[in-house]
Amino acid sequence: MDADRFNELPSHVWPAHARRQEDGVVTIAGVPLPEIVEEYGSPAFVIDEADFRSRCRSMAEAFGGPGNVHYAAKAFLTRAVARWVDEEGLSLDVASENELRIALAAGFPAGRIAAHGNNKSEGFLRLCVDGGVGHVVLDSFQEIERLARAAADAGAIQPVLVRVKPGIEAHTHEFIATAHEDQKFGFSLASGSALRAARLVLESPHLRLVGLHCHVGSQVFDAEGFSLAAERVLGLLGELLRECGPRHPEGPEGLARQLSTLDLGGGYGIAYLDEESPLDVAAVAADLLAKVRGHAEELGLPAPTVTVEPGRAIAGPSTVTVYTVGTVKDVHVEDDRLRRYLSVDGGMSDNIRPALYGARYEARVVSRFVDGAPVDSRVVGSHCESGDILIDSARLPDDIGAGDLLAIPATGAYCYAMSSRYNAFGRPPVIAVSSGKASVMLRRETVEDLLALEQD
Amino acid sequence: MDADRFNELPSHVWPAHARRQEDGVVTIAGVPLPEIVEEYGSPAFVIDEADFRSRCRSMAEAFGGPGNVHYAAKAFLTRAVARWVDEEGLSLDVASENELRIALAAGFPAGRIAAHGNNKSEGFLRLCVDGGVGHVVLDSFQEIERLARAAADAGAIQPVLVRVKPGIEAHTHEFIATAHEDQKFGFSLASGSALRAARLVLESPHLRLVGLHCHVGSQVFDAEGFSLAAERVLGLLGELLRECGPRHPEGPEGLARQLSTLDLGGGYGIAYLDEESPLDVAAVAADLLAKVRGHAEELGLPAPTVTVEPGRAIAGPSTVTVYTVGTVKDVHVEDDRLRRYLSVDGGMSDNIRPALYGARYEARVVSRFVDGAPVDSRVVGSHCESGDILIDSARLPDDIGAGDLLAIPATGAYCYAMSSRYNAFGRPPVIAVSSGKASVMLRRETVEDLLALEQD
Repeated sequence: MDADRFNELPSHVWPAHARRQEDGVVTIAGVPLPEIVEEYGSPAFVIDEADFRSRCRSMAEAFGGPGNVHYAAKAFLTRAVARWVDEEGLSLDVASENELRIALAAGFPAGRIAAHGNNKSEGFLRLCVDGGVGHVVLDSFQEIERLARAAADAGAIQPVLVRVKPGIEAHTHEFIATAHEDQKFGFSLASGSALRAARLVLESPHLRLVGLHCHVGSQVFDAEGFSLAAERVLGLLGELLRECGPRHPEGPEGLARQLSTLDLGGGYGIAYLDEESPLDVAAVAADLLAKVRGHAEELGLPAPTVTVEPGRAIAGPSTVTVYTVGTVKDVHVEDDRLRRYLSVDGGMSDNIRPALYGARYEARVVSRFVDGAPVDSRVVGSHCESGDILIDSARLPDDIGAGDLLAIPATGAYCYAMSSRYNAFGRPPVIAVSSGKASVMLRRETVEDLLALEQD
Repeated sequence: MDADRFNELPSHVWPAHARRQEDGVVTIAGVPLPEIVEEYGSPAFVIDEADFRSRCRSMAEAFGGPGNVHYAAKAFLTRAVARWVDEEGLSLDVASENELRIALAAGFPAGRIAAHGNNKSEGFLRLCVDGGVGHVVLDSFQEIERLARAAADAGAIQPVLVRVKPGIEAHTHEFIATAHEDQKFGFSLASGSALRAARLVLESPHLRLVGLHCHVGSQVFDAEGFSLAAERVLGLLGELLRECGPRHPEGPEGLARQLSTLDLGGGYGIAYLDEESPLDVAAVAADLLAKVRGHAEELGLPAPTVTVEPGRAIAGPSTVTVYTVGTVKDVHVEDDRLRRYLSVDGGMSDNIRPALYGARYEARVVSRFVDGAPVDSRVVGSHCESGDILIDSARLPDDIGAGDLLAIPATGAYCYAMSSRYNAFGRPPVIAVSSGKASVMLRRETVEDLLALEQD
């Protein structure tokens, strides 16, 4: 990449309000990143609040209303984030008792929360019932029993979805329509488990089935995989209505009204690299909703309310991680070939995704313009591990040196959420920026925080 | 595996003081694991203090004295662990400013601490100098400058090693003698960087070179790779003595006495599985030390003091993670083949190694005897991610069910140290057991701990 391109901030990868000033300094929402580092130290996560909120709104618009969109808390959750999601009117997915507790602590309306998990604890299930969670996504026969017991004990009727494994796996632009079902989530459609589970739930006086759920994968970029999954799950819905409708107090139509939710899960792809295109949410949603209506019509079913669960697609592009460059080292990788190692002051503790998934990222210098010639480079962290690599291979300008601020965009999802304290690194702070102002969402962890758990 | 074997606790994988009682309950150091779960909850790490200490002693014995053995703090560090290491007389390796701070907070003698890192911060280097750290392992030319400046500012002379990249990579029973040098650590031997670095350090009035360092890999099981690396590094030492010895105030012999440390790093392998054999520390050390003496003799050099940096080999086998089984699900992986999914109440947050490195583990039920027939099984965690797998494939008895306690041994290194709060899971506690008593080394993280970093 030449220096000119390296000074650009591709708008499909960077937060919406990232700009490079005339002096070369990058601002987000009007706040210069070097000022953030000066005040809060390095490394730091910087989250563009308006970017996050606007993605909530785009999703809501695309899927027919904010209530149809569940922000997947696992991507990144704090009380402030829960409040943003609430203010935008979205629903919220939680996947553990603590995620639920954080949402409730933020005052998130329980009725708009859905609870996920392959192995929900007794405590989590009871908190769902007692807290009035909108619905629980049931994942196993044991859980049907456990939740029914919890609801009975509370004298409540808990709305639920049944999670169906439709045998489809989607990633990027491909999907496998005959994916094996070798994973921990959901009830198999093919084996009849899903039908049995739904039937059981319908018979339970303390559970109220309100629809079906499926999830096809992550980093998906078109509607096909979702649509085929929807078709299969609607087939199950048809079977259920035929079998159980006649016994329903309000007949088949009543049951159809009750089972109106078709949750197609998450997986909406984002761009991590300049060369990638993000998913066009509006176009894919329109395509998907039309296909679902078509499938329903073919099957003689009322059109369901399609709900979705984006996490990465909302949080991911909102955030950048700002590092300071330290050691620069040229290494002979072959006799006549060098690779430049740029070490930054974070690493696999604040972003495990490259090491864990082989995830690819790009970086930009955000403290000034660069104009060096591109050289083969690798961006590594400061951990005592040779696999501590943030960007495995990139052509970076050769004038990047110690003290430069290097930022990696699209780090809003699954970076802070999966961060560790490896090598006793304290977590970086998360600084929220909005309308020219910076505020601390999460402060930096100190060695005192690390020692606080020790009991002697 | 048949149930009988499944009820055994292979002594080369489990902590030294793990026993199965007549009622089937497993104890460590006399403390029943179910009692630990009852008192401190599940999941929990349980560390056998005497096992940890005895591995410190075996290493010390094998390598000619406790001072020659640096426990690598990155594997697992708390103040209590630092005190155990101190009481056993071992030295300590730290790889970050916070690791150093924790060691100093534990009262670990700074003179027995060595400091590592490819990108040591200014603050880390200054703390090394001011705190009187035994030696700093230099890793780049920039660092030579930075450390010399820090020492000059403090009016000190800082002992250092130079980390050499010997072009050898060792893993398990194989090593590559012509490994490419494409990694972030050290100075290349082949390119002459290592010689230049050592020369520079010898010329610096504020640094005192006391030896050379290299590291060949991890999970190494024999002496060959270490020995070949030692030969190459000794070659460099010979060059240095010939070149710089005549200029040394005490002549070549004086310089040889000064450069007496040959640190061969860590990487001593442990057994994670019954079918694996751990490294025989005493035999490998004797072999290695004899080879190093031989190399030195051939080169006409005085025999160096060999130092080593085991982390995993000391901490790894001391610890087990105890989980509670929740959901059990049989999944069709092919039409006529089932796989049983056993979900436990932890997962990739407390042990990222299977997902990150493809690391393999075994499990045992520790709350009772099992006697079921073996079935194809997978042990998964409770995270909202299909890759959240602890044991990918094992034949486990079919009578394991909800409520059983399942323990995974050999989780003492790089599990807690790399743990995250993914899905807002609080970290499990670490319970130290010794002579029939349990004490909390690290308490469980609560949702309040998670919220404590939020600033609004």
